[in-house]
Amino acid sequence: MEIQFAKRFDGISGSAIRDIFKLLTNPAIISFAGGNPANTALESDVISRLALKVLAQNGTQLLQYGQTEGYAPLRESAAEFFRHNGVDAKPEELLPVTGSQQALDLICKALIDPGDTMLVESPTFLGALQTFKLYQANLVPVETDEDGVIPELLEEKIKRHHPKLIYLIPTFQNPTGRTLTLERRKQVAQIVAKYGVMLIEDDPYRDLRYAGEPLPAIKSFDESGRVLYCNSFSKIISPGLRTAAVVCTDPTMMRKLVIGKQSTDVHSPNLNQAIVDAYLREGILMEHIRIISESYGKQMSKMQQMLATFPASVKYTRPDGGIFLWCELPEGFNATDLLKTATQMGVAYIPGTHFYTQPGTHHNTMRLNFSNATLENIEKGMNIFKELFISEGLR
Amino acid sequence: MEIQFAKRFDGISGSAIRDIFKLLTNPAIISFAGGNPANTALESDVISRLALKVLAQNGTQLLQYGQTEGYAPLRESAAEFFRHNGVDAKPEELLPVTGSQQALDLICKALIDPGDTMLVESPTFLGALQTFKLYQANLVPVETDEDGVIPELLEEKIKRHHPKLIYLIPTFQNPTGRTLTLERRKQVAQIVAKYGVMLIEDDPYRDLRYAGEPLPAIKSFDESGRVLYCNSFSKIISPGLRTAAVVCTDPTMMRKLVIGKQSTDVHSPNLNQAIVDAYLREGILMEHIRIISESYGKQMSKMQQMLATFPASVKYTRPDGGIFLWCELPEGFNATDLLKTATQMGVAYIPGTHFYTQPGTHHNTMRLNFSNATLENIEKGMNIFKELFISEGLR
Repeated sequence: MEIQFAKRFDGISGSAIRDIFKLLTNPAIISFAGGNPANTALESDVISRLALKVLAQNGTQLLQYGQTEGYAPLRESAAEFFRHNGVDAKPEELLPVTGSQQALDLICKALIDPGDTMLVESPTFLGALQTFKLYQANLVPVETDEDGVIPELLEEKIKRHHPKLIYLIPTFQNPTGRTLTLERRKQVAQIVAKYGVMLIEDDPYRDLRYAGEPLPAIKSFDESGRVLYCNSFSKIISPGLRTAAVVCTDPTMMRKLVIGKQSTDVHSPNLNQAIVDAYLREGILMEHIRIISESYGKQMSKMQQMLATFPASVKYTRPDGGIFLWCELPEGFNATDLLKTATQMGVAYIPGTHFYTQPGTHHNTMRLNFSNATLENIEKGMNIFKELFISEGLR
Repeated sequence: MEIQFAKRFDGISGSAIRDIFKLLTNPAIISFAGGNPANTALESDVISRLALKVLAQNGTQLLQYGQTEGYAPLRESAAEFFRHNGVDAKPEELLPVTGSQQALDLICKALIDPGDTMLVESPTFLGALQTFKLYQANLVPVETDEDGVIPELLEEKIKRHHPKLIYLIPTFQNPTGRTLTLERRKQVAQIVAKYGVMLIEDDPYRDLRYAGEPLPAIKSFDESGRVLYCNSFSKIISPGLRTAAVVCTDPTMMRKLVIGKQSTDVHSPNLNQAIVDAYLREGILMEHIRIISESYGKQMSKMQQMLATFPASVKYTRPDGGIFLWCELPEGFNATDLLKTATQMGVAYIPGTHFYTQPGTHHNTMRLNFSNATLENIEKGMNIFKELFISEGLR
């Protein structure tokens, strides 16, 4: 007898990316495929010191069961930290979660029945797409341009499809690196208020800015309580600690998130929340962000300099921050097919097709990560790409 | 416009228990309501030392993104540890999770469509019931006696209801403290194999044994791969670390659990997994279990001694371990109604009604936790109960 799995797994294989990452277990391969911070950005010594400090101060409480609502001091310090993004939330409007991915899962749990429509930027983060698919959402893409999602198209699709939920990454978007303009942020906030649609604003990259001025979050223009603001400490402190938070200013919605979280993992680990809280309270995060941004900015410039030496038919984005660039090869080139040869030559990326709601399209696109590669490897890896693409006929 | 929530939240309030725990913020109240280890069982110094050790050895890897499949050394050490339960799993058959609650969530995610039937012991763990309800399962109770679930009734209900999944806590059950006999364990393994039904064996209390001989897990008799064995380090090391594991010997099922976990929280925090791994590898867990079991055993005896002074119309279970006793007052007594007065008098419990699939029944039952109360407070608290019940007419 075969096990009969739930319908939500129909058509979910999870295999495409998995196979890519399997290829990467070879340490000789230069990987632009992941979304990892640089290993040098991870401060074992600081985290050790903070772990010791919080366990000495408060060990019994941290090792005991905690509140589903989160470690109270972190709700305060994270709310305070988010204020520089224009997000003015009270501690009780902030729910610590086990990485932003959990926020996506809990928001879907609260809102999405099978068949409900969600609007997503096209292209968008593949991990989010997988979560939404497991909730059997009907995913409708919304076109983007250099300035992010196009508000007029967003409104048109809301009117046509009556979505329950919209998913946007407005700053240094994954996978494109693009940033929604100030004017569009205001428009999006107005649109969701007008139609009463919930919006996930996923904002993990905003503090990694290497040029230009910070823009306020869409949430800062939200008076309707419809914007769910997700931010994470994964890219700026440590992804392995799995500590993020979602701001939800609608108390009924917050209650559903908490009940969902209770039934999902009871609460996020206290020690991890306390370490991040101590990090924030020591006031050392902005300086750490400055230091890693300086490196990441150089890595991004190097990757762009290398792309500038490619034939002009290769298009790529020019973000002011984040950890990704997005490349478009001329039509006819297939980044999905070329991946195997690329990894054999010693370099990897993620084919862009995985970032679209309809798989099997946009095979000429690819996502490149620069945060986890040295300047030397960026130069080396990009030269391998150039060689490969030119040997495939790129002009 | 009101937010339209997903149908899975219809009828889910999460409020009953929440209100009880709100009452307990008063530290003067003696609480038999939770399921917490004793604060004195939580070793801040050991955890500090291990955190320092693993971060010094392996900090960068622990702070970086990890594998959804879990921290490889923990998969080994936990598989080794589970062997003393008769569960002989390979590391790749073991998935570390963020507390056993997450195992329940992921198993339902893999298997349960709305309306699918699940069989559960009656009564059973209320946190599990909430997870199952959020997956819109049709919950069918199976009667239990002093020796746990009754295999003949289990088989009869399988034939009648064609369940997708069965949920059992065979050792020192929550809420009753009862243990399934060896003979019944074998029968249950045979029944699930015969009908091809998946079974969750939730086994967090097994190592807290104060009398009698350990029994092998149901999983040890499972040749069909249908038994999903969940065990947790929450009750024996620390609940705040949120580290547990599920053993799944069917590779297709394991794949669904991993994909579900990836979309739920990417992976459990590495630091926490590494701390538990180091704890296991240092070989200090069995001695720690011996020490806490000595205390908990005395606390259980004290609570039973106090119950022995109650009028004989009060029935209670006499487990060989775990952290709970289950009481039945004579028909007509309402533990749900009496809770408010009890907390005003300074003592709390969980009304038994919350452990049944049909709320509003079995109001004469209650669950008492003894692991998180001193001998003095157990005496004091139980005397308050006796006074209260006698003043309510108990004879």
